[in-house]
Amino acid sequence: MNDRSNILLTPAELEAELRAIGAVRYHHLHPFHRLLHGGKLSRQQVQAWALNRYYYQAMIPIKDAHALSKLHTSELRREWRRRIIDHDGDTAGTGGIERWLKLAEGVGLDRAYVESTEGILPGTRFAVEAYVNFVRDRPILEGIASSLTEMFSPDIIADRVRGMLQNYSFITEDTLAYFTPRLTQAPQDVDFALAYVKAHALTRADQEKVLAALRFKCDVLWTQLDALYLAYVDPGMIPPGAFVPG
Amino acid sequence: MNDRSNILLTPAELEAELRAIGAVRYHHLHPFHRLLHGGKLSRQQVQAWALNRYYYQAMIPIKDAHALSKLHTSELRREWRRRIIDHDGDTAGTGGIERWLKLAEGVGLDRAYVESTEGILPGTRFAVEAYVNFVRDRPILEGIASSLTEMFSPDIIADRVRGMLQNYSFITEDTLAYFTPRLTQAPQDVDFALAYVKAHALTRADQEKVLAALRFKCDVLWTQLDALYLAYVDPGMIPPGAFVPG
Repeated sequence: MNDRSNILLTPAELEAELRAIGAVRYHHLHPFHRLLHGGKLSRQQVQAWALNRYYYQAMIPIKDAHALSKLHTSELRREWRRRIIDHDGDTAGTGGIERWLKLAEGVGLDRAYVESTEGILPGTRFAVEAYVNFVRDRPILEGIASSLTEMFSPDIIADRVRGMLQNYSFITEDTLAYFTPRLTQAPQDVDFALAYVKAHALTRADQEKVLAALRFKCDVLWTQLDALYLAYVDPGMIPPGAFVPG
Repeated sequence: MNDRSNILLTPAELEAELRAIGAVRYHHLHPFHRLLHGGKLSRQQVQAWALNRYYYQAMIPIKDAHALSKLHTSELRREWRRRIIDHDGDTAGTGGIERWLKLAEGVGLDRAYVESTEGILPGTRFAVEAYVNFVRDRPILEGIASSLTEMFSPDIIADRVRGMLQNYSFITEDTLAYFTPRLTQAPQDVDFALAYVKAHALTRADQEKVLAALRFKCDVLWTQLDALYLAYVDPGMIPPGAFVPG
């Protein structure tokens, strides 16, 4: 806190502060991602990533349902429910979760094992549940702000798709089909969420909560990669009960 | 699951299954503890442990208050409230949390910084909150079962106190005063909790929930050491915003 800490930020200043958080805390900076995109991981390590990240994907609509329950106009709910539709699809076999399962199968995992989530790291489970609980338990302004990591996702997705296709013989465009719609969905979601926090964070205290919510969400993403790194990269300490690559 | 998976366990068999979980999942097996007790950590690494573990200590009475709210007789609540009294003390300057703060100060941390919890690892925060939420959100049978890691704590505490006093010049008996009462408190708490789950888990399904609750709690403890290990031991990847030893 400096001497400007009680002065209301303009909407543009608030956005700049949000972007500054992403620049230092978003998980594109995590060593695991550099290894993943750079082709430095084994197929088994990519499996561990796909398996654990599935739990995050699978819980996103639950998180969004909690958000939906706090939006008190049809207009807002129509906007937010698009996220749930994106993940759950319109019919069986469509939607983001289904596409993630195809990615997991594409890297050689058994679909039912992935869906069971029984092999995920406890660190994954605790981080993802922290996110769901945050949106459930906090005011909607903070819940919406916590979604703003998507401001930073198009870049990482483009890097990831390019890097993984180039570097892994076992990865095809089909396997990565999850990411293609995200490149258009995420910016659309961000436009709404960013406009919402700019319009509704009208005290410095609320602006600080918005910034804290984004930091929290960066921690949720970072911690998932920390858990993967410790268990499957270095030093390779897999906790009792978690996925042991075959 | 074997072919006996639908048969009710006797109370003695249930206790044996609980002990079998501890034998393979309790955090006495974690490499961080071997380093801690064996004198292999620097003062800064011991500081990181004390700082992070403080958050666990500080949240235990919150967790126990949730449990208390689910106990519907004075007799049960009198039994359980002892845990809260043990941690919060009878007067200012007493109780387990206060003793933990003294431990943290004893290894060179600033008391206000520790109490703020601002430097703890996100992995610590998520694991501890998963525990609090578990007890808040699940039936009391599972909440009580999740406390049963204390069945295994007297051994680890005895090892820790002996090892730390022997191996670290900056650790005194005074610093470790937290642990002395735990050696008598924990067995008393376990006697009640173990008798409770034996008496109340009267279907195999409930017995499985009791076993799952203990596995969950072992994960909570293990994951905290995983986070410390990654950040402060190997490979030493401190997440953005967390305590950086001076």
